[in-house]
Amino acid sequence: MAKLFEKIAIIGQGLIGSSLTRAIYEKKLSNNISITDSSNKVRKRLLELGLGAAKVVNTNGEAVKDADLVIACVPVGLFSDLTKEIAPFLKSGAILSDVGSVKKSILEDVTPHLPEDIHLVPAHPLAGAETSGPDAGLPKLFANRWCILTPDELTDKSAIKSVTKFWEALGSKVEIMSAERHDQVLAVTSHLPQLIAYSIFHTALAQEEKSGLPVIQFSAGGFKDFTRIASSNPTLWRDIFIKNKNAMLEIFEHFKTDAEACIEAIREEDGEKLEALFSKSRITRRRVIDKEHISLLPDEPDNEIADTLFRPYASGD
Amino acid sequence: MAKLFEKIAIIGQGLIGSSLTRAIYEKKLSNNISITDSSNKVRKRLLELGLGAAKVVNTNGEAVKDADLVIACVPVGLFSDLTKEIAPFLKSGAILSDVGSVKKSILEDVTPHLPEDIHLVPAHPLAGAETSGPDAGLPKLFANRWCILTPDELTDKSAIKSVTKFWEALGSKVEIMSAERHDQVLAVTSHLPQLIAYSIFHTALAQEEKSGLPVIQFSAGGFKDFTRIASSNPTLWRDIFIKNKNAMLEIFEHFKTDAEACIEAIREEDGEKLEALFSKSRITRRRVIDKEHISLLPDEPDNEIADTLFRPYASGD
Repeated sequence: MAKLFEKIAIIGQGLIGSSLTRAIYEKKLSNNISITDSSNKVRKRLLELGLGAAKVVNTNGEAVKDADLVIACVPVGLFSDLTKEIAPFLKSGAILSDVGSVKKSILEDVTPHLPEDIHLVPAHPLAGAETSGPDAGLPKLFANRWCILTPDELTDKSAIKSVTKFWEALGSKVEIMSAERHDQVLAVTSHLPQLIAYSIFHTALAQEEKSGLPVIQFSAGGFKDFTRIASSNPTLWRDIFIKNKNAMLEIFEHFKTDAEACIEAIREEDGEKLEALFSKSRITRRRVIDKEHISLLPDEPDNEIADTLFRPYASGD
Repeated sequence: MAKLFEKIAIIGQGLIGSSLTRAIYEKKLSNNISITDSSNKVRKRLLELGLGAAKVVNTNGEAVKDADLVIACVPVGLFSDLTKEIAPFLKSGAILSDVGSVKKSILEDVTPHLPEDIHLVPAHPLAGAETSGPDAGLPKLFANRWCILTPDELTDKSAIKSVTKFWEALGSKVEIMSAERHDQVLAVTSHLPQLIAYSIFHTALAQEEKSGLPVIQFSAGGFKDFTRIASSNPTLWRDIFIKNKNAMLEIFEHFKTDAEACIEAIREEDGEKLEALFSKSRITRRRVIDKEHISLLPDEPDNEIADTLFRPYASGD
């Protein structure tokens, strides 16, 4: 049976790269998977793991040779150099894709070094975990998750179609949008939350240092989520923040205005305003959940009861 | 066998109140549990649920009569009125406690109305869930969670000891600190994260309204945590924010300074500074986890491998 791609190359075998390798094998999307990583130790580990039928090779050039689809799973800061390195080895008509969290910079970094006969279809699977490395990969990582593609207007339609089919075969829901819109959306849904998590962790740490008494250990639900986020990979996020600088700076100003409006209502002890602000979040979130048909929340109790006065009687740690 | 308290009254049967009722019954801490709630519907539901051997009564006065321990599980904004209401019915020598998220205001709201022969031992279990109402209660909610007690210096030592034993019997780790320190600690570990979650949700919503295109549905790990937090009870948080106003205003200024330092590093594309900031979070978090002997993170892969260059190769949604 003809495969979606005869040969696929995955460069970088961290969490995402090795999850892709596993998923491609499990879904039988290619007969020939070539994988590599810049770290000797990781390549050695890949041989021990024996991920599916994937062939571990030593260089990026060797990996991409004859590949119909090449997916770069490396930090976005390395894209420019990587493209320069692999360009001479790419097969004519091959598709180059990636999994990076910033998309406008990909076009800027990759396009100048890209041969004309290569189709660039940037991709961003909204999937992740706090774990890293080739051992952490999960074949189901992309199931029921968004994968955003950001081709430009001139990109070959059949290349876009093939990459769409690829991600759908892994169980993802594919959405196509401009790189600019992707970066604005992710700035608020992913990058700013990350910056905030880092910042509040530092605020708590400073409070601890100032008082000489423990603070962070008394964290309840909300803060635990923040500290989990703040423990993510520093190098990865350094690159993302700098590559998505403009959207980050813009969205931070909006956030600061929103947070300060809330702080002003607290200063004025304006309970009505606060409750109105918070209720809006709750309603909107419900709308989002309904729209997505995804239950992010545990089941709520019976609505009639839920709407009575007992709602406030839950402690909010 | 003598029970820790002959009679316990729990006022308010939301998530925390009904969890306490269930836990007290399961741990056999009292022969006589009297419960009530201001909502008729909730009281009716309590009779249907038949929580342990708890007796459902119609008024707060009836509930607290002859009780050795009274625990108020109502929003902190209602404490002053509740104390006034129950004061005439409290048994001499009884202990009055609560589960509120702000503690300095409890002392200010309750003390003026409290008979001299009643021992006030404020408590805050750092436990919660997004669910609410009497159906949502869980007997294990307090197991392995902190419970912070904030008695003042004049509080009867044996009353503090009894309340400590009570929470320890429910599986909690008890910590005693001043109400002022509690409020400062919780401002950063709980209240500010909540304010931020509400704010960023609004920022995302405004972006969606402005562009006329979906934004929030493309949320990955970090933002999902934020939206989960932002869906919490509006009335509850309105009260908490206003009651802990001073600590909130102070900690927000610190947070804003920390976040702006991060934004400035992005503006200047200062990768070294960013990475240093983020690495500090990661190291500190590890220290906190080690100290607590609690594994908040999934197991990390082998350290030798984890320290190699492949770490950055995970996509950060």
